[in-house]
Amino acid sequence: MNLLYEGKAKRVYEVDHGDKVVIEFKDSLTAFNAEKRDEVKGKGALACDISVRLFRVLEAKGVKTHFLGRLSETSILARKLRIIPLEVIVRFVAAGSLVRRYGVEKGKALEPPVVEFSLKSDELGDPLLCPSHIVSLGLATLERVRQLEEEALRAARVLRELFEERGLTLVDIKFEFGEDSEGNIYLADEISPDTMRLWLGKESLDKDVFREDKGDVLAAYKEVRRRLHDLPG
Amino acid sequence: MNLLYEGKAKRVYEVDHGDKVVIEFKDSLTAFNAEKRDEVKGKGALACDISVRLFRVLEAKGVKTHFLGRLSETSILARKLRIIPLEVIVRFVAAGSLVRRYGVEKGKALEPPVVEFSLKSDELGDPLLCPSHIVSLGLATLERVRQLEEEALRAARVLRELFEERGLTLVDIKFEFGEDSEGNIYLADEISPDTMRLWLGKESLDKDVFREDKGDVLAAYKEVRRRLHDLPG
Repeated sequence: MNLLYEGKAKRVYEVDHGDKVVIEFKDSLTAFNAEKRDEVKGKGALACDISVRLFRVLEAKGVKTHFLGRLSETSILARKLRIIPLEVIVRFVAAGSLVRRYGVEKGKALEPPVVEFSLKSDELGDPLLCPSHIVSLGLATLERVRQLEEEALRAARVLRELFEERGLTLVDIKFEFGEDSEGNIYLADEISPDTMRLWLGKESLDKDVFREDKGDVLAAYKEVRRRLHDLPG
Repeated sequence: MNLLYEGKAKRVYEVDHGDKVVIEFKDSLTAFNAEKRDEVKGKGALACDISVRLFRVLEAKGVKTHFLGRLSETSILARKLRIIPLEVIVRFVAAGSLVRRYGVEKGKALEPPVVEFSLKSDELGDPLLCPSHIVSLGLATLERVRQLEEEALRAARVLRELFEERGLTLVDIKFEFGEDSEGNIYLADEISPDTMRLWLGKESLDKDVFREDKGDVLAAYKEVRRRLHDLPG
């Protein structure tokens, strides 16, 4: 297999004559733009397992994703796409950078939810950017921006409801999207406690456990996994 | 006169039984959230004079502003408004924070122009915020956001054309708006080299001269004033 890309938490290999990719989930955990990093044995398998279950739920609810099937404990098969260099973040509850930037109280409900973008750039620290910047810098058309906002919000609402039924609060979630050669967009990347904030009451069951040294990160991810056990894996 | 507010570059007094305000332009120059500051004798009078001329141009072009008349070398009479706690910035050319944030080349033309918002908060360092944040944090409705964007863009285009005729490039400009008791919005604050970037070729004729220690800031403001001498003061 031809290694296309190695990121902080995943390796992506090209397969099937370049039409598809294999995504392998690594045990690495990074935060603060990789200034903080650790290896947690079993994290990759948990992130993979949770992603698979959530991709299947989203697909069943009509959200188009890059997910094509599971290959192993730590890898999936996915569509090969041109990844749009934007993170799309949906926030239902104030936390993290929103609290730091605007002095909003942590835990404040956001209604309507915030949908924000950041530029995927480790070098620049994934800076926040607004639809106007995206259009003026030629990163995407306004039509595409609106489509990404809608798709992200739709997917986030499906997941919020799912977690709510399981006693967890989806606080915020980061999505990445890719487009195929015909310009269709698909939700890409992973969907795991690495890419969202999930609260059990006031307790974090996500990467904040690692970011803020709040305890056993693997146990937190396992608890999320346990609450999704009935879903097809 | 009752002092309502003293800011970094202006004092605002209430007059006429609270219906109007007197705005006095100070000689203070501040940058980097007031970490850098200086007093430049005559700067206030120049900022006032330039603002008066530009407010008159904007009014003549149908942009509603808070300007009611000139009172002295350093003061104007204006409508009393509830100031909306947002800065609205229009960018025609990449410079300043846009270059630092996104790694765009300084001087790159932005088409369409960027219209961005920041939260007026010295404490938080006037952070960038997007329409989605403004709405979700309850700072303004989406309709009001769109109206502010449109008005800011309209005013900025009038000024860009005016400066172009006089050999100067309007790079970017910051506006503030206020609303009256009936919810009508007016362009407020000042409109001077303190609140915009103006280039003569590659030479700055604005507060960047002070920010970046590029020479005689008073001479730069005088040059701008000279190029507006034919306009009613």
